[in-house]
Amino acid sequence: MPFPLASTPRADGFFMPPEWHPHRQTWMLWPERPDNWRYGAKPAQRAYTAVAEAIARFEPVTMGVSADQYENACARLSEKIRVVEISSNDAWVRDTGPTFVIDGKGNQRANDWEFNAWGGLTGGLYQPWNRDDQVAQKICNMERIERYRTDGFVLEGGAIHVDGEGTLLTTEECLLNANRNPHLSRAEIEQKLRDHLGIDTVLWLPEGVYNDETNGHIDNIACFIEPGHIVLAWTDDESDPQYQRSRTALEYLENQRDAQGRKLKVTKLPMPQPLIQTDDEADGIDQAAKAWPRRAGERMAASYVNFLIVNGGIILPAFGDAMDERAANILADLCPGREIVPVASREILLGGGNIHCITQQQPLA
Amino acid sequence: MPFPLASTPRADGFFMPPEWHPHRQTWMLWPERPDNWRYGAKPAQRAYTAVAEAIARFEPVTMGVSADQYENACARLSEKIRVVEISSNDAWVRDTGPTFVIDGKGNQRANDWEFNAWGGLTGGLYQPWNRDDQVAQKICNMERIERYRTDGFVLEGGAIHVDGEGTLLTTEECLLNANRNPHLSRAEIEQKLRDHLGIDTVLWLPEGVYNDETNGHIDNIACFIEPGHIVLAWTDDESDPQYQRSRTALEYLENQRDAQGRKLKVTKLPMPQPLIQTDDEADGIDQAAKAWPRRAGERMAASYVNFLIVNGGIILPAFGDAMDERAANILADLCPGREIVPVASREILLGGGNIHCITQQQPLA
Repeated sequence: MPFPLASTPRADGFFMPPEWHPHRQTWMLWPERPDNWRYGAKPAQRAYTAVAEAIARFEPVTMGVSADQYENACARLSEKIRVVEISSNDAWVRDTGPTFVIDGKGNQRANDWEFNAWGGLTGGLYQPWNRDDQVAQKICNMERIERYRTDGFVLEGGAIHVDGEGTLLTTEECLLNANRNPHLSRAEIEQKLRDHLGIDTVLWLPEGVYNDETNGHIDNIACFIEPGHIVLAWTDDESDPQYQRSRTALEYLENQRDAQGRKLKVTKLPMPQPLIQTDDEADGIDQAAKAWPRRAGERMAASYVNFLIVNGGIILPAFGDAMDERAANILADLCPGREIVPVASREILLGGGNIHCITQQQPLA
Repeated sequence: MPFPLASTPRADGFFMPPEWHPHRQTWMLWPERPDNWRYGAKPAQRAYTAVAEAIARFEPVTMGVSADQYENACARLSEKIRVVEISSNDAWVRDTGPTFVIDGKGNQRANDWEFNAWGGLTGGLYQPWNRDDQVAQKICNMERIERYRTDGFVLEGGAIHVDGEGTLLTTEECLLNANRNPHLSRAEIEQKLRDHLGIDTVLWLPEGVYNDETNGHIDNIACFIEPGHIVLAWTDDESDPQYQRSRTALEYLENQRDAQGRKLKVTKLPMPQPLIQTDDEADGIDQAAKAWPRRAGERMAASYVNFLIVNGGIILPAFGDAMDERAANILADLCPGREIVPVASREILLGGGNIHCITQQQPLA
């Protein structure tokens, strides 16, 4: 296969388009490991299937699955979903898959970030993670897309959002965490982001969502909904440890300008009531020394911001919470051209993420 | 993924094009199992790599490889070769991969034959063979090609050759073997071939090459080089057990007409001197109860007929035998527009086949 390119996307005229740029398809990976997904991952497979089928109403979906689960995945997914063999350590293609870049002239490439399971040996969620770190390469090889490999620079796709006009949104909690790139300064990390995503300005929220095991991925707390306009996960409950995180983020954003010199508009997206893992949910998980323990009574990092924008729609987490409808209505108002499709996602949340975390859009070139 | 189609290719207007029809690409699978390939399959991987690189001079090549061997295959293959994850039980995509069909109007589909490891529990070469039986489906799914699955009809791609004008060539030794489709009569098998390959006439050679563990696959003894013209593996040594097999085949062919009513022209392609597995070759193989034993002193089924026609070329087995050059010269005379590329293939032969067995052409639609 083509070897990784020695230059950078920016040097070659490539940049990461925003999520609302038209997609060629969305990639997913099939959940399987019983030490992260309760009851042999069957409930999670149902949830992933529901997400895949929802996306497939709008655009093609490719599901990567291990050899052991190939037959089962084919049987559970409808004929609209393309199933291919891609082994992984777990099913978070937002973080392990490629981050695609385009040049605006019909060409497409991708970033293949070094991956360390959200923290390596100091806070990472499992080991080994060698198959996860091959996912981006496998997707690029399959699609005959050239890639830039960032050995020595750890990043996950869920740690960044872009507006397509030069501005990137991330969190200090994640990108400056000592378990990612302790050898790089903030300025050096910004330069990596500029070089690999073709952006100019980095907006740094201090923290992500409370108790988010990714060390505060941006894609659970805030995202662009259009250039100059950010949606922010919000709670009015001052006793909630999330309150100060969202409040600080809002104050930060109100005092920033984006790469185009614009002041930022911020829309608050309410969070659901705190969601707690139950005894039964925790009991269905295999006990394993090398995987993150999931315990009954733990608060989960539930957020409606973890939605995926697709061609003509938004696939939105739903929790069976009173706020589900309000979140959908807010997004419907913000995006009149898009159908809002809520998908029950508590089962995905139990595994540590949500709809945006388990999907990776591939743009049209 | 699309479910298997319920009809047949013939009913839908599809037929198998001949091997000289222009190819979109050639598929291969990476050799790995140490109970079939000596010395951890490293010598075989070198041989497969040489075949892949030879083909890649003429057309794209995709190599399917297990998760465990993905990194190694990528490192050993040049950047021209596309590497994708496809698990298998062994590396014979001619027999486990799809047999593609086209409709002459720009559409392409494929047959996904039931596979039983060349004989199932009565003479098959290993068990299990479940991953092999998924290979055709995986290739079709990856390429978004619809397929016809023949549950209840066992066939391998190496057991058939077609001329693209209605005639199919096969052997009784293989297709009428009790370890393939004992529930079907000769007439019923012919009907399956008509329905799935869009042919009209079946030519039945009695036997294949002596000591061929596939039960006499046609692709080791005879093939079409153009409509009405067959190349036949030949020896003049009457003491060789191969002599009577080739002689009988020749006499049969001289008395047949093809689907177009033509008498058949037959060109003899000499065989190399008998090739015997050495002590060292046999000693490098893992001993395993569920795999075919490969023993020193065994004669191997070496034949130049096991070549692959590619776009503008022929990839020809070479054995370091005095006949190598003569075989190449005969094919060069028969195919003045094609470059003849001999590739040393003893290492492939040690595993039980040759260049045609380890490749599967995908035609242009």
